[in-house]
Amino acid sequence: MPKKIIIDTDPGVDDTIAICVALRSPEVQVIGLTSVFGNAPGEVTAQNALRLVELEGHGDIPVARGSDVPLVFPLERLGTWVHGEDGMGNTHPPAPRGKLVDQTAAEFIIDTVRANPGEVILVPVGPLTNLGLALRLDPGIAGLVKEVVIMGGAVACPGNMTPVSEANIYHDPHAADMVMAAGWPLTIVGLDVTHKTMMTTQFQQELFKADNPAVRLIEKILPCYKNYFNGAFGLNGAIYTHDPSALAYVIRPELFETQSVPVFVETAGRCVGQTVADWHHQWEERPEVKVCLGVDSPGVLALIKERLTK
Amino acid sequence: MPKKIIIDTDPGVDDTIAICVALRSPEVQVIGLTSVFGNAPGEVTAQNALRLVELEGHGDIPVARGSDVPLVFPLERLGTWVHGEDGMGNTHPPAPRGKLVDQTAAEFIIDTVRANPGEVILVPVGPLTNLGLALRLDPGIAGLVKEVVIMGGAVACPGNMTPVSEANIYHDPHAADMVMAAGWPLTIVGLDVTHKTMMTTQFQQELFKADNPAVRLIEKILPCYKNYFNGAFGLNGAIYTHDPSALAYVIRPELFETQSVPVFVETAGRCVGQTVADWHHQWEERPEVKVCLGVDSPGVLALIKERLTK
Repeated sequence: MPKKIIIDTDPGVDDTIAICVALRSPEVQVIGLTSVFGNAPGEVTAQNALRLVELEGHGDIPVARGSDVPLVFPLERLGTWVHGEDGMGNTHPPAPRGKLVDQTAAEFIIDTVRANPGEVILVPVGPLTNLGLALRLDPGIAGLVKEVVIMGGAVACPGNMTPVSEANIYHDPHAADMVMAAGWPLTIVGLDVTHKTMMTTQFQQELFKADNPAVRLIEKILPCYKNYFNGAFGLNGAIYTHDPSALAYVIRPELFETQSVPVFVETAGRCVGQTVADWHHQWEERPEVKVCLGVDSPGVLALIKERLTK
Repeated sequence: MPKKIIIDTDPGVDDTIAICVALRSPEVQVIGLTSVFGNAPGEVTAQNALRLVELEGHGDIPVARGSDVPLVFPLERLGTWVHGEDGMGNTHPPAPRGKLVDQTAAEFIIDTVRANPGEVILVPVGPLTNLGLALRLDPGIAGLVKEVVIMGGAVACPGNMTPVSEANIYHDPHAADMVMAAGWPLTIVGLDVTHKTMMTTQFQQELFKADNPAVRLIEKILPCYKNYFNGAFGLNGAIYTHDPSALAYVIRPELFETQSVPVFVETAGRCVGQTVADWHHQWEERPEVKVCLGVDSPGVLALIKERLTK
C-alpha cells in the first residue's frame, strides 16, 4: 500500500521537482496539495500547485489554498528573487484548467487527517503557517497523523536566509515553533543534509535527456534558480537539493541518518528563524524530533533521477 | 621582550589556573589584573585577583576592580554553583594583604593602554563588561592595543550556558557585541577549542605531584569545579580547559587554527548570548575577528603542565 501524503508547498522551482518525484513514485499516493506563500505570493503558489497536478494527468488530486501571510510577523521578503515572480523561473506558464477546493489548506489538512486516522504523512516544504493554523484549529490532529516530514531548518550548519536561519523556517518562525512543539512524529530534512546533496550540471544534463512533461518543465524553470545559487553560493550551475530531499526521505528513509533531540525555533532578535537543537536539555521539556544530519547523497540523487526519467 | 598582558578575570577556578600559568611564563609579563563579576560576585572576584598575584610573590602587580553587573541586563545567575560561593571552590582562603588600585578596571585598562601604545594584549576570561565600558569611555583604545584574546563564545558548537551560548558571553551579551564590533585585532578562544582540550584525572594527578603554592591551591579548589563537570557533562573527574586555553593562545598561538569571520552576539530572544559567525556576510558590515576552530590539545596541556610544575 502506498503511503498517503499531503504536500504543503509554495511552488517554487525545487517544490516542482519534489512534487514531480512524488507523483511518479509508487511508494506514495499524493492525496492532496496545500499551498502557502513563500517562494512566491499565495495566489501564485496556489495556481502553480494546480498546474503541477495537471502536468502529467493528476488533475483529480485536490489542491487547497493556504495562508498568504505568516501567523504573527508581517509578510516580508518572498522568494521571488530565487524562484521568479511567477515561482516558475519567470517562464509564465499558461493558466491551469482546474479549480481549488472550497476549503482552506488548514481545514483540508484537518478533514483529511481525521478521515484517514493514522495514515496521512504531511510533507511541508514551505513556510509552516498552514500546519500551525491546523494545530491551533484542531490540536487532536497531532495524535492522528502518521508522520510529518518537513524540508526546513539548519540545526548544525549555517543558514541560507541569515547566518543562522533557513528560509522556510525564517518565513514563519512562530508556526515553525508550534510544529516543533506539537509532539507528533516529526522529521526535519534541513540544510544539514540538503546542502550536502548537489544536483551538478552533469546530473542536470543527464536528467534533461529524458523526454516527458515533468523533465521538460524542470529544464525550463531551472535557469532562474541556478542564477541564484551561482550568485549566493558560487555553485557554478549546480543546485542544492532542498524540497526533493524531503520526498526522498518519505520514499526511502534509510538514505538518511537522524538523531532525536528537542528543537526550538527562535522568534525574536537577530537569530529569528534559527532551529536550535537542545542537545543537553537545558531549556524546558519538549518532545524530541528526528533531525537528519547525514545523507547518502548519491542514493538520493539516483532516486530522483530514476523517478523523473522513467 | 615578554608580551605585556592585562588579564580581565572573574576568579574562578579555571581563571586561577590561567593566571598561575601566566605568572609562571617568561613569554608574558602580567602588567595588571582587572576583575569583573561572573564566576562569583564582583567583590569576591576582586579579592581573589589580589590573592592570586600574592600567591607566588607578585603582590606588586596592580589589581583594579571592575563591574559588578552587566552593562544592560540585570545581574542574573552567577557562576557560584560551578566555582563555589567564594569563587575558590568553597575553600575560603584567608584575606589578601594587598589593596586594589584606586581606579575602576575600565579606567586602568584605558590608562595602561595609552601609556603603552601598541604594546598591551588584553586577555579577558570573564564577562566582557569592563572592555565594553572602556571602549565607550575611550574608543581610541581599539587602535592602540596590540591584541585582544578572549576566552568566550561557541561559534560552531553548542553552548554551555544555553544550547547556543557560552557563559562569559551570556553574562554580558551587549558588552560582548561591542567587543566583537570594535575593529581591534581580536581572537576568540571559545568552546570550539576549549571543549576539545580535557584535563583528565591522570593529567591532574601528574600535575599535583609538583609542590608549589600554585599547584597546591589548584589541587585544593578543583573538587568543587569537577563536581559541576561530572553533573553537567558526565566527565568523570575530567575538566574542560577554558581560561587557560586563552593564555596558551597568547603564549603559543601556533597551537591553534583560526578562521577570520565577522561575529555578532545575540542580545535578544532565546538565543541571547550566542556568538554568530556571519560566514557569508549576510548581515551588515563588521570587521572580521579570528575564531579558534582547531587546537593541538596535547600541546596546550603540555604547556600548562610544564609551566605549573617547573
